[in-house]
Amino acid sequence: MKYSFSRRIQKTPKSFIREILKVTQNPEVISFAGGLPNPGLIDTEGILRAAETVLKNDGRNVLQYSNTEGYAPLRQFIADRYKNRYNISVNPEEILITNGSQQCLDLLGKVFIDKNDAVAIERPGYLGAIQAFSLFEPEFFPIEMHNDGPDSGELKKVISEENPKIFYGIPNSQNPSGITYSIEKRKEIGEILTDSDTVFVEDDAYGELNFTGDILPPVKKYLPDLGILTGSFSKIISPGMRLGWVCAPEEIIDRISTAKQASDLHSNYLSQRIIAEYLLTNNIDEKILKIQEEYKLRCNLMTNLMDEMFPPEILHTNPKGGMFIWLTLPKNYSSQKLFEKAMDKNVAVLPGNPFYVDGGGDNTARINFSNADEEGIRTGIEVLSKIFKEWKN
Amino acid sequence: MKYSFSRRIQKTPKSFIREILKVTQNPEVISFAGGLPNPGLIDTEGILRAAETVLKNDGRNVLQYSNTEGYAPLRQFIADRYKNRYNISVNPEEILITNGSQQCLDLLGKVFIDKNDAVAIERPGYLGAIQAFSLFEPEFFPIEMHNDGPDSGELKKVISEENPKIFYGIPNSQNPSGITYSIEKRKEIGEILTDSDTVFVEDDAYGELNFTGDILPPVKKYLPDLGILTGSFSKIISPGMRLGWVCAPEEIIDRISTAKQASDLHSNYLSQRIIAEYLLTNNIDEKILKIQEEYKLRCNLMTNLMDEMFPPEILHTNPKGGMFIWLTLPKNYSSQKLFEKAMDKNVAVLPGNPFYVDGGGDNTARINFSNADEEGIRTGIEVLSKIFKEWKN
Repeated sequence: MKYSFSRRIQKTPKSFIREILKVTQNPEVISFAGGLPNPGLIDTEGILRAAETVLKNDGRNVLQYSNTEGYAPLRQFIADRYKNRYNISVNPEEILITNGSQQCLDLLGKVFIDKNDAVAIERPGYLGAIQAFSLFEPEFFPIEMHNDGPDSGELKKVISEENPKIFYGIPNSQNPSGITYSIEKRKEIGEILTDSDTVFVEDDAYGELNFTGDILPPVKKYLPDLGILTGSFSKIISPGMRLGWVCAPEEIIDRISTAKQASDLHSNYLSQRIIAEYLLTNNIDEKILKIQEEYKLRCNLMTNLMDEMFPPEILHTNPKGGMFIWLTLPKNYSSQKLFEKAMDKNVAVLPGNPFYVDGGGDNTARINFSNADEEGIRTGIEVLSKIFKEWKN
Repeated sequence: MKYSFSRRIQKTPKSFIREILKVTQNPEVISFAGGLPNPGLIDTEGILRAAETVLKNDGRNVLQYSNTEGYAPLRQFIADRYKNRYNISVNPEEILITNGSQQCLDLLGKVFIDKNDAVAIERPGYLGAIQAFSLFEPEFFPIEMHNDGPDSGELKKVISEENPKIFYGIPNSQNPSGITYSIEKRKEIGEILTDSDTVFVEDDAYGELNFTGDILPPVKKYLPDLGILTGSFSKIISPGMRLGWVCAPEEIIDRISTAKQASDLHSNYLSQRIIAEYLLTNNIDEKILKIQEEYKLRCNLMTNLMDEMFPPEILHTNPKGGMFIWLTLPKNYSSQKLFEKAMDKNVAVLPGNPFYVDGGGDNTARINFSNADEEGIRTGIEVLSKIFKEWKN
């Protein structure tokens, strides 16, 4: 049967990550490919208690339709946390609850992007954002990433010449590179975008996973009217409950709300209530601290093993948090080949190429450190180091 | 601040329904405006038990990321139910789980509609579909509804002249009109669309709420390759858990899966597991029968009161199920005026105009019978009948 599919869907890349995840569900595979939180850090007991409380005390309401913007006390919690953690003032009306922070990208695409509009994105950039925005058929302008964040010269040029609707970035522990923008870079992006027509979509999925204690203010602090922050409960409570949020000026939230109504009416209300109850009755700071400590251990173990065992021509980033380390191999190496060689030994890595909207990145790879246990990390890095040592192009 | 919003969002109507719902949250208002299931029929006890079971037995998995298509046993349940209820053969790979059936419309818009593509829709048509599709900027072609379904002549003309990507309809207890397509109409639509480029998106949110026992086969039975069925757990289990599904040939599901990945990765997995467990450990047929009986009582009470008390020039449909009765007032009456007069007396009805993509319908109104209790129905219809009797244009 030949169907008349839209051009938009034919332009949207399928996620290589999610395809790889299917391969790596074999329990014998050590997976550095996905971005899964460590299962041991998910508090199933606490969630169970919260679910019992809300269903027993207010079952008929928590299972009924609800409003599009989200549960008010949850929006209040998020606003308060921005104040406490980043010292930025946000009111709850500037927050709308979404199905994970991935849905923020879909909604922002709907609200801002018409066909052929320019969108600036980090190079390498988050594949999920490339996918989400692709449905609205923009033209992408990649901005090269350095160790302190995106290239300012390139950004200035794109902003002034292409007038993009959106610049999308992940200042804290970027996916895929693990890079954190410096404070100077954050201020500079604020300056470059002020008085432009471009909103900065600041994906902060990993901000709470910063394990260095060195917390930097979001770019939105320097760009209040054009800054849009997105966040997620996936990395700190549960990804399966699919809850995130977008924080933006009310005029933008109002448009996002229209898009959200049209897309799925509202986010899962039972899960909103469970998470709100969980946050009220648990010390979330303690839980997050535990996640940070565990991830720090894993990340340090991995980078130390890389320093020890990898040939010196294999470069890696040193993340301050998040879930990912980025490998850069010599120019003539192929990470697709690395993927195949590693899969032969039951180790999964993610080739970096899909993170480049303009091609390239064939010699890069993303390595996740949050999901595997210590033994898996040791074995996996050993396997990769052997592959590198025996590498023949 | 002036933001560069997309043209698409500026074309998308805000839901009048959801705006009205805010007004009607006042507990003194008798609301016939929304489409809420009766709260007394939501089985909070059963959901609580199911939630406890899945969280206790498999907590780390149910709270983790999952696959885009949805939980396999839930997809199997839906396939089996199509076989048992409608005698159509569907395999679980032809089903993808969504955030309520509203999200099906968003995903189908993404998969099929490019700007200026033609979309055929019932007149009056479901406002949520008009909103969802509007984001993809189609041209709508309304097909007039009669008491046995959409006008065949108009449909033939639009299919042959405009070659629409989608014809969207609700054959069982349509929202807003309450009309159920006849068996002849279903076959005829199958014939008209066979060999066309148009898929029939058959929204079956209300199929399980048919309280007459007269179950008709879906149009998809006569249009296997071009038929796309959507369904929902909102009306039979819980709307707050936001779970629905789309059933389509695998080639289409594959595209929908790409759109779903880009939109929000996957549907809430905790809720998928709770509903699957609930379906396994409860007699869902018994629960649905109870809902049907209750809604039949309310619907009959309401139409009987209308026959008894309304002036004869006020016409109403006689639904076989679902949640809505459609009023047609004399041509020179305004249902906006009816809305205002009724709100003055704390009764909320929904003006019909937003259900017409081409304007019109000013003398129509949608009346919900599922949410109010018996006393509310009596009082509310009495209020409306007084308004009609005293009506002055």
